[in-house]
Amino acid sequence: MPVSKKSHIIGHDFVNIAATIGPHAAFHALLRDFSRFGATPEGGIHRPEGSAANGEARRHLADWFGQRGHRVVVDGIGNMFGIIELAGPDAPLVMTGSHIDSQPNGGCLDGTYGVVAGCIAAETLAQEAGAGRLKPRANLCVAAWTNEEGARWQPSTLGSGTYVGDFALDYALARKDGDGVSVAEALSGIGWLGSDAAPAMPQAYVELHVECGPVLERRNLRFGIFKRWWGCRKIELRIDGAPSHTGPTLMSERRDALQAAARIITAVRQFADEAPKDVMHTSVGRIEVSPNSPNVVPSRVRLFIELRSAEEAVIDGAFARLEATIAETAKATQTGMEIERDEYRKPGQFSDRLADLADRAARDLSVGVLALDTIPAHDAVRLAPFAPSIVIAVPSIGGLCHTPLERTEPADLALGLDVLTIMLRKLVESGGS
Amino acid sequence: MPVSKKSHIIGHDFVNIAATIGPHAAFHALLRDFSRFGATPEGGIHRPEGSAANGEARRHLADWFGQRGHRVVVDGIGNMFGIIELAGPDAPLVMTGSHIDSQPNGGCLDGTYGVVAGCIAAETLAQEAGAGRLKPRANLCVAAWTNEEGARWQPSTLGSGTYVGDFALDYALARKDGDGVSVAEALSGIGWLGSDAAPAMPQAYVELHVECGPVLERRNLRFGIFKRWWGCRKIELRIDGAPSHTGPTLMSERRDALQAAARIITAVRQFADEAPKDVMHTSVGRIEVSPNSPNVVPSRVRLFIELRSAEEAVIDGAFARLEATIAETAKATQTGMEIERDEYRKPGQFSDRLADLADRAARDLSVGVLALDTIPAHDAVRLAPFAPSIVIAVPSIGGLCHTPLERTEPADLALGLDVLTIMLRKLVESGGS
Repeated sequence: MPVSKKSHIIGHDFVNIAATIGPHAAFHALLRDFSRFGATPEGGIHRPEGSAANGEARRHLADWFGQRGHRVVVDGIGNMFGIIELAGPDAPLVMTGSHIDSQPNGGCLDGTYGVVAGCIAAETLAQEAGAGRLKPRANLCVAAWTNEEGARWQPSTLGSGTYVGDFALDYALARKDGDGVSVAEALSGIGWLGSDAAPAMPQAYVELHVECGPVLERRNLRFGIFKRWWGCRKIELRIDGAPSHTGPTLMSERRDALQAAARIITAVRQFADEAPKDVMHTSVGRIEVSPNSPNVVPSRVRLFIELRSAEEAVIDGAFARLEATIAETAKATQTGMEIERDEYRKPGQFSDRLADLADRAARDLSVGVLALDTIPAHDAVRLAPFAPSIVIAVPSIGGLCHTPLERTEPADLALGLDVLTIMLRKLVESGGS
Repeated sequence: MPVSKKSHIIGHDFVNIAATIGPHAAFHALLRDFSRFGATPEGGIHRPEGSAANGEARRHLADWFGQRGHRVVVDGIGNMFGIIELAGPDAPLVMTGSHIDSQPNGGCLDGTYGVVAGCIAAETLAQEAGAGRLKPRANLCVAAWTNEEGARWQPSTLGSGTYVGDFALDYALARKDGDGVSVAEALSGIGWLGSDAAPAMPQAYVELHVECGPVLERRNLRFGIFKRWWGCRKIELRIDGAPSHTGPTLMSERRDALQAAARIITAVRQFADEAPKDVMHTSVGRIEVSPNSPNVVPSRVRLFIELRSAEEAVIDGAFARLEATIAETAKATQTGMEIERDEYRKPGQFSDRLADLADRAARDLSVGVLALDTIPAHDAVRLAPFAPSIVIAVPSIGGLCHTPLERTEPADLALGLDVLTIMLRKLVESGGS
């Protein structure tokens, strides 16, 4: 049966590629595969959740597991889980992963790196177990979480947040993008709105990521462990003035919402500048102005403010200052101000046990380690209150992230894979504890 | 022929409505007609140039002239001219009018008042001439100028500016709105891109407008004559920063274009606050921010700045301060700044002869008169260097303009119509001089 034989030969070559070419080469080949889906001329990827390119990447991931005989579970919010059953159906679970959605015109490593490395690490361990060189006491799972970026739908980390129960499924599915398209509609449209039961909470969750910051590079180190995550208070502030003609309206009678906004924007920056160095980050990234006509005094502004720190007291102090600034500025500018949304992700700590495990794995490879804070959210931040979790990281060249210029040295990417593989091996051997 | 008869009767009733109900009632009825096109729930109108509602208003105006047997000329930039021929085709021309485009969610008087009053005044004079009570030595023309507001396309007073030759027709037609739609495309879309030759420059241009300011009301006067216009320097400033993640990017390394913009906005207000009272008006009415995502440091901002005064030296001084502020702020915020547009309408004086005529007309009606400055542009400002021009005004309640709350007492609106009618009668009798 030539057809079957040919198929067998191709399949055989494919599934044994890691064994043949080694895990580093297999990793770079798979990463290159994913870099095609949504590739942009600038060398990045444009692969927002629910886009056609995102659907192609999902298909590739599912095929990758399927070709190796692993089950793929897709839950009701579209999270994908490749299940590598090593220790029988009732064994505990060790999970790794990240996300394969991207920022608009983002980079090819953010998220995808952790998923691809998770696949290759899992394949290595599956082969070791198959060859009897590993005694597994846990199963492995590689997760690709839905809408981590929050670029198309807010909030970010929507898939992992739904998995742990922070968001009700109905709420998550009903989120709408800027064009009014819901998560449910978009995932249905690309065929990835699943209905499988998600796997149970793992015994450990290890997420490998690029740093998305410049600290490792500047310290000339190749490996970091995120021990804490920064808190982030996201505030939407509405400012109400009154529209009038920019020409004749007396200056003393203008109720100019944009003038009021300018004072708030300047003050928000001062909160960070007046805190100890690098202890607080603040921003106003988005402003909506109405009517936004050159010759009408702006009557309404909406500001999107962020206050970030690893220390809750710092965020609370800045928020109190913001409230005082709002009151003063509203009075001085004859405007009304109201906080319309106030979403507070408190700072926290990842698992000490998993941090120690990461530290030992890196030292096994004779690599120096730096303890870091993660300032952006990761899916691990959602899982941490429910399962021991950690994020480990390799350097981002120039600290760049959320841009097509995002890069990491290939050797550093391989190093991250090696540390992840060592950690997952220990966890699979110990049953996850 | 019943059909013809019926049509005749309706037409007869319609064209003689002013004679039957009097010009004040006819005026209020016609103003109410126009208030329907683009009516908003707040009681204003949303009728930007080139919108469907603007097309309906244009249709109504053309029908109004057509039903009275007057020729309507639509020129290459969409300016509409109703020609009331009283003294033969070669007689000189006396022009009145204003505009029927509106600000986004603007008021129903700004511009429309002058067009509607012009129609009714012209009808009154046509009837007087027809009845032999007026010996005309000039023809009348009621103009509705395209894109006076400058809300959808910059610059403002685009139609009158093209009529007098300040703008080349190709330049005017190629202006693009925020969605990239050109003036030519939008006017074609609603069927009002004309090709008629515009009428020759008039012997006199009289524009009736609401004050759009609080001075008359506060002085308890009902009628004003704009003797001067304020100058206005309109500056578009581009600010270039760099995009990065609002989370991890160190504060010291952010090149935040919105932070830089906030400083400029605050400084522009200070120029006015530090000038002698009511001598200078400044504003930033429009801001464009990119990428305008809550978690990306803003990388590009465009500000629309206005510096206004009746005194050229005051504007020049503020512009010099703006240039210094730009240099300082660019340095302090690590941003690049460039003035992309710098349009300077110098202050000036309207026709003394027409101001005297307006003064006498008001005194004929035993109404007190106040000499005013007009701070916003009017189409008359475009015409003034080429033809004797004047703007006359009635009070705006609360000084409100460019808002749905814009109102004027009905009796004051009627007074403005009466003054306009007297002025136009004198000008038609004298041949415009």
